[in-house]
Amino acid sequence: MNWKPDFSSEIPLYVQIKEFIKTKITLGEWSVGTKIPSQRALAALYNVNRSTVVTALHDLIAEGLLEGNTKGGTRVVNNSWNLLAAAPPPDWSSYVQAGTYYPNQPVIQNINRAEFQQGIVRLGTGELSEDLLPSEQMKSIFAGSSMNAFSLGYEEPKGNLYLRKQLADYLQGRGVSASPSNILIVSGSLQALQLISMGLLPRGSSILVEKPSYLYSVHVFQSNNIKLVGLPMDEQGVQTNLISRYKEGYHASLLYTIPTFHNPTGALMSEARRQELMRICTNEGLPIIEDDVYNELWFDTPPPLPLKARDPHALVLYLGSFSKTLSPGLRIGWVVAPEPVIDRLADIKMQSDYGSSSISQWAAAEWLQRGLYQEHLVSLRDQLKRRRDLTVQLLTTYFTGMAAWHVPAGGFYIWVEITVEIKMQVLFERALKAGILLNPGTIYHRQTGNYLRISYAYAKPDELEWGMAQLAALMKQLAGT
Amino acid sequence: MNWKPDFSSEIPLYVQIKEFIKTKITLGEWSVGTKIPSQRALAALYNVNRSTVVTALHDLIAEGLLEGNTKGGTRVVNNSWNLLAAAPPPDWSSYVQAGTYYPNQPVIQNINRAEFQQGIVRLGTGELSEDLLPSEQMKSIFAGSSMNAFSLGYEEPKGNLYLRKQLADYLQGRGVSASPSNILIVSGSLQALQLISMGLLPRGSSILVEKPSYLYSVHVFQSNNIKLVGLPMDEQGVQTNLISRYKEGYHASLLYTIPTFHNPTGALMSEARRQELMRICTNEGLPIIEDDVYNELWFDTPPPLPLKARDPHALVLYLGSFSKTLSPGLRIGWVVAPEPVIDRLADIKMQSDYGSSSISQWAAAEWLQRGLYQEHLVSLRDQLKRRRDLTVQLLTTYFTGMAAWHVPAGGFYIWVEITVEIKMQVLFERALKAGILLNPGTIYHRQTGNYLRISYAYAKPDELEWGMAQLAALMKQLAGT
Repeated sequence: MNWKPDFSSEIPLYVQIKEFIKTKITLGEWSVGTKIPSQRALAALYNVNRSTVVTALHDLIAEGLLEGNTKGGTRVVNNSWNLLAAAPPPDWSSYVQAGTYYPNQPVIQNINRAEFQQGIVRLGTGELSEDLLPSEQMKSIFAGSSMNAFSLGYEEPKGNLYLRKQLADYLQGRGVSASPSNILIVSGSLQALQLISMGLLPRGSSILVEKPSYLYSVHVFQSNNIKLVGLPMDEQGVQTNLISRYKEGYHASLLYTIPTFHNPTGALMSEARRQELMRICTNEGLPIIEDDVYNELWFDTPPPLPLKARDPHALVLYLGSFSKTLSPGLRIGWVVAPEPVIDRLADIKMQSDYGSSSISQWAAAEWLQRGLYQEHLVSLRDQLKRRRDLTVQLLTTYFTGMAAWHVPAGGFYIWVEITVEIKMQVLFERALKAGILLNPGTIYHRQTGNYLRISYAYAKPDELEWGMAQLAALMKQLAGT
Repeated sequence: MNWKPDFSSEIPLYVQIKEFIKTKITLGEWSVGTKIPSQRALAALYNVNRSTVVTALHDLIAEGLLEGNTKGGTRVVNNSWNLLAAAPPPDWSSYVQAGTYYPNQPVIQNINRAEFQQGIVRLGTGELSEDLLPSEQMKSIFAGSSMNAFSLGYEEPKGNLYLRKQLADYLQGRGVSASPSNILIVSGSLQALQLISMGLLPRGSSILVEKPSYLYSVHVFQSNNIKLVGLPMDEQGVQTNLISRYKEGYHASLLYTIPTFHNPTGALMSEARRQELMRICTNEGLPIIEDDVYNELWFDTPPPLPLKARDPHALVLYLGSFSKTLSPGLRIGWVVAPEPVIDRLADIKMQSDYGSSSISQWAAAEWLQRGLYQEHLVSLRDQLKRRRDLTVQLLTTYFTGMAAWHVPAGGFYIWVEITVEIKMQVLFERALKAGILLNPGTIYHRQTGNYLRISYAYAKPDELEWGMAQLAALMKQLAGT
């Protein structure tokens, strides 16, 4: 989409645009059924007046390539070949709708797209901003010499052994005992969930999950016809009183939890709650997926030991990742689990993508082996804590009386309850127009529509200052106060 | 599994081994239900006599932790905690069997494991051997400075734009016109198939596929309840006479083909057959997945243009990869397709693994942009051709009268028909004992059990010489000639 018309050419702009669109259609880039961008968007894209676009589209409609309607925009209905040929092209739209996998929620698709708009301030994005990622150190890792050369070949089904050894040592530091044969390397912990969903759970089963949860924002379980059953939370984490009843009532086969710096609420499960949860799940024989990707991002004191560190019955599938701490672009996470489980998941991973990038695996192992990861965490915690402090201060300054929140002890998120009457969909759209991208609470559970997930990890301090002030002003307007 | 008993210790070896196994069990590394390695394997692992292992296991059985039987080996039946505790641990074996995803065929699981045995000669492996992978150049890419810094963050849903631009330019060279918005970066072309299977096809549909085909060796479609319907092949590629009938009879929604240097047969689809295939599929409105990962590996003359290069109706989903030419460890492939299809697949990819490694994507783009990829291909073709020539010569020397084959014009494979009476299962096992790993034809279709896929890409020349001679000798024995 980087083409622009040649403004110095003698060929009229609308003709150039027409020909360019025609090429896209005839090459099949815009296939029959494709809804093309709006007139406004095309005008912006090609740096021309909207009337120029209108003229070009008008011609293409007249030629039978496009069809416009008042509601749904303009679609490709034909291409120059099949104006001549007898056979219809495949109707790709029907294929696109046929697959079994759920599409992302439209609001998430919008967010995914908006994230790559230039100049937008992202107040909800759950990743580290570019300046918190250690690009220079990563370069030096590749430039330096290592005892362990990286391989360009495939890795073992469970992943690179050097990395699994490093991880086994490293996890010992948080009380998690594992040998390399109990570890599966995955491309981020979302993939671990995908593998668990395909490999361990029958269709029609259900899993217990915190309400709200990050898990509601993806369809990794639902697309395999597995139901999510929400458990209420309080400040200590997920509540345990309903687990037994729900397990029986919904035939739940697993419990998924983010005990440490929960996504989206930021909650830290207390030591007492951890013990209680383990006791109940042990009694029930209910396995747990412990998603512990924020474990290292504590500010003042380390969190209580993971559930996996108190797991004599091998109840816990333990997930971790470098995405929230070192580099999401590495796409490296891991699962710790009993060997038969790891073998099963590794087998499916081999059938899905033949393993994760060996270069990424090598780099991750080097970070651990050289101790650079541990050093990096020290400075990252410090910087994140400053951002948290700033964001809490901004909330206090601008949102007092309009919202309520808890101060998180680590992780990325503040779960902000909007306490004034506001249509959140309208707030989302107005904010986007003003250049601010929000993660509304409805993504994480349909009952938490009056919340926002504010992340202090992605927006830079000046963006946070500007964005939070703007957002507060917008809310005031909408609330009519 | 790197632990060894301390031979200088005063503690008897069998006690050390017993305690070590106990630790593995109580930590949950060997969970209840795990089948532990054989006595022979444990003895080898710990460098001790088998009788030492027998004594240790005997004690653990007496303590109620293990249970042995004559057939199925020894299993973990309990752990020290739940000898005391009331509640049973989760029965992971039942979970492992519950998932909807098909396990790999046992023969493939065996192959996957055997591939990591030291010293085994792999005569069927479909990947480049270490010495054909350009490790030094890869290092220099990371060490050198680039106009395009690599990012540690997430990439756009369709993948890194720099790479997609490079690919669009590069594919033009083989007649495939695409813009970056028509390209999705995936973690190898197997993942592309996974995404297509989840995103474009309804459960219960079927796809047409060459018989034999690589596709029968993975379960990417079958696990989504999509059936494979085999089309016979001849020397010109897949036969077209049954396509219309099968499409109707089986309600086939796609045709999958590897027209160029087919896996496993090595066949190259002729120009005439390509035209015929496109004509029929266009008439039928039957979309095609063109798996073109071997395209660049021609020996004397380039192959005919891809199907995608003659695709005005946007019928073809075009798959490519760096795994067969540059580095499988990169885990980078791509799909070229109409935009609505790419958008759909990108959405599912985001929900599966949030995109491919950004470091791998950056490296791939650099290979293209600096022209190093093209240089590398020249020398790779030359080296592969020598290996093909050697292998054909070895076949002629040792297998004349026992087997039949065609000489491939590119790619990795010779599809060898065994023309003497031999039980292939026995040959596979005998060969493995002799240190040779085979890919039997039954992996690629149940009717091609009397074939072997011989690959000249993986085994080194001296391994090929030794392995082919040994294999011929084994076959002579088994055939009783």
